[in-house]
Amino acid sequence: MKLATIRTAGGATRAVRVEDDRLVDLGAADVGELLAGEDRAEPAGREYSPAGARYAPVVPRPGKIICVGLNYRNHILEMGRDLPEYPTLFSKYADTLVGAEDDIMLPPETAAFDWECELAVVIGRPVRRATTAEAEGAIAGFAVLNDVTCRDWQFRTKEWLQGKNWEATTPLGPYLVTPDELPGGVRPKVDISTELDGETVQRDNTGDLLFDPVDLVEYISTMITLRPGDVIATGTPGGVGHARKPPRYLRAGQHLVTAVDGLGRCANRIVADA
Amino acid sequence: MKLATIRTAGGATRAVRVEDDRLVDLGAADVGELLAGEDRAEPAGREYSPAGARYAPVVPRPGKIICVGLNYRNHILEMGRDLPEYPTLFSKYADTLVGAEDDIMLPPETAAFDWECELAVVIGRPVRRATTAEAEGAIAGFAVLNDVTCRDWQFRTKEWLQGKNWEATTPLGPYLVTPDELPGGVRPKVDISTELDGETVQRDNTGDLLFDPVDLVEYISTMITLRPGDVIATGTPGGVGHARKPPRYLRAGQHLVTAVDGLGRCANRIVADA
Repeated sequence: MKLATIRTAGGATRAVRVEDDRLVDLGAADVGELLAGEDRAEPAGREYSPAGARYAPVVPRPGKIICVGLNYRNHILEMGRDLPEYPTLFSKYADTLVGAEDDIMLPPETAAFDWECELAVVIGRPVRRATTAEAEGAIAGFAVLNDVTCRDWQFRTKEWLQGKNWEATTPLGPYLVTPDELPGGVRPKVDISTELDGETVQRDNTGDLLFDPVDLVEYISTMITLRPGDVIATGTPGGVGHARKPPRYLRAGQHLVTAVDGLGRCANRIVADA
Repeated sequence: MKLATIRTAGGATRAVRVEDDRLVDLGAADVGELLAGEDRAEPAGREYSPAGARYAPVVPRPGKIICVGLNYRNHILEMGRDLPEYPTLFSKYADTLVGAEDDIMLPPETAAFDWECELAVVIGRPVRRATTAEAEGAIAGFAVLNDVTCRDWQFRTKEWLQGKNWEATTPLGPYLVTPDELPGGVRPKVDISTELDGETVQRDNTGDLLFDPVDLVEYISTMITLRPGDVIATGTPGGVGHARKPPRYLRAGQHLVTAVDGLGRCANRIVADA
């Protein structure tokens, strides 16, 4: 099953089930509310056309967005580092999110704006200190997330938060795809890639994740309850602009396509923030 | 003016104005909703007795909790470090919060549970790329926050998030006190302290902050919109347990009192999490 949050007239949103020829209204304002079971009116029998649908972030206001640092084995080893014992975790705020086809706002305050295609996990059930089976059952599905980063701000201090939390920089969507639709299920083994103006700049497979989605749900839920709509961004593979020689950064007017097989793609234009 | 969020029968909460002899219902479920102007019924003329009032976190579900690392000048210099050019920022999730007199849950997974008394800033007005005057105007008030930390988890990786995000470890309250009640106003100059079982273990003055509340609102709002109810924890002075020789950590049964002059105090028991 594929779910999405689409924008409707008047600035509202609706949660829909995505079918080949139609989007079926599910009686909730967005996929986050649908997962939380809140505010759910009876499905109204309403349908929308997939043509011209405008996608909001699939979960517009997650209670938590937990991001993972180095997590692709090939990339860690090619950088000459040892495989870490623990995942490196940092956080994003919900105001960073944009929809799958929205503009990404390039702040005038950065000179090092960079891409990071990621597999995002969306939580469907509250879990604390989850066993492996509970962690598997807590995963509602997956989406594409692009953790666009201001590298200069990321490295101003040791903590990465300020490179990772610029408003309207982080596409999340277009769909939430349930694990049964993916090879590997809750541990998906699918290709992940980034194209910049048509040139492939990142390509890997999510089977290469050192800490897979189930591991991450177990680890994070040791600390804190994961709740429906919470998002875990599982880290990016090699190929980011900052690691290139010379480095390459995003400029206004460029087009960025981040894709994960089976999850669709985010296609976003880089626009200078006034 | 002092505001608080109190617990009422049946697990609900109410926003109140704190007066000497009574707590006046303000027609909102909590101080976060009051600041956001959401869900506000007409004040009902209801009052409560201050005696036996049970305080929830003064903002129970902030959209953002942004924390500052090293920020007390004396403490940075006594550690032999240079004063930093930029504030070090990290994040907490709302599930970490407890009320001013609630138990702090000591996780069995840590052997290094430590105190950090802080001045917390509460935002009252949305701001992005705030000027100094806009930043001053965006501060609704201040509260006490105790950023209780699992040091062993904090230093598992370079990012501090996993030491700082354990459920039910972070008292926030008891009140939101408006800037006009404090010497220094939006740049308060007041004593801040921690007592562990009656022994003073931290003592400083918030006038020693390197980045003061207004600086922090300006800096953070460069990146992202600060919204009503968002919380900035401004950092802790010297005297934490981890920096002592030998280190001292919290044990179940101990009592921790964190206080800021004019803001009241959080008084919490350390309880082993089952």
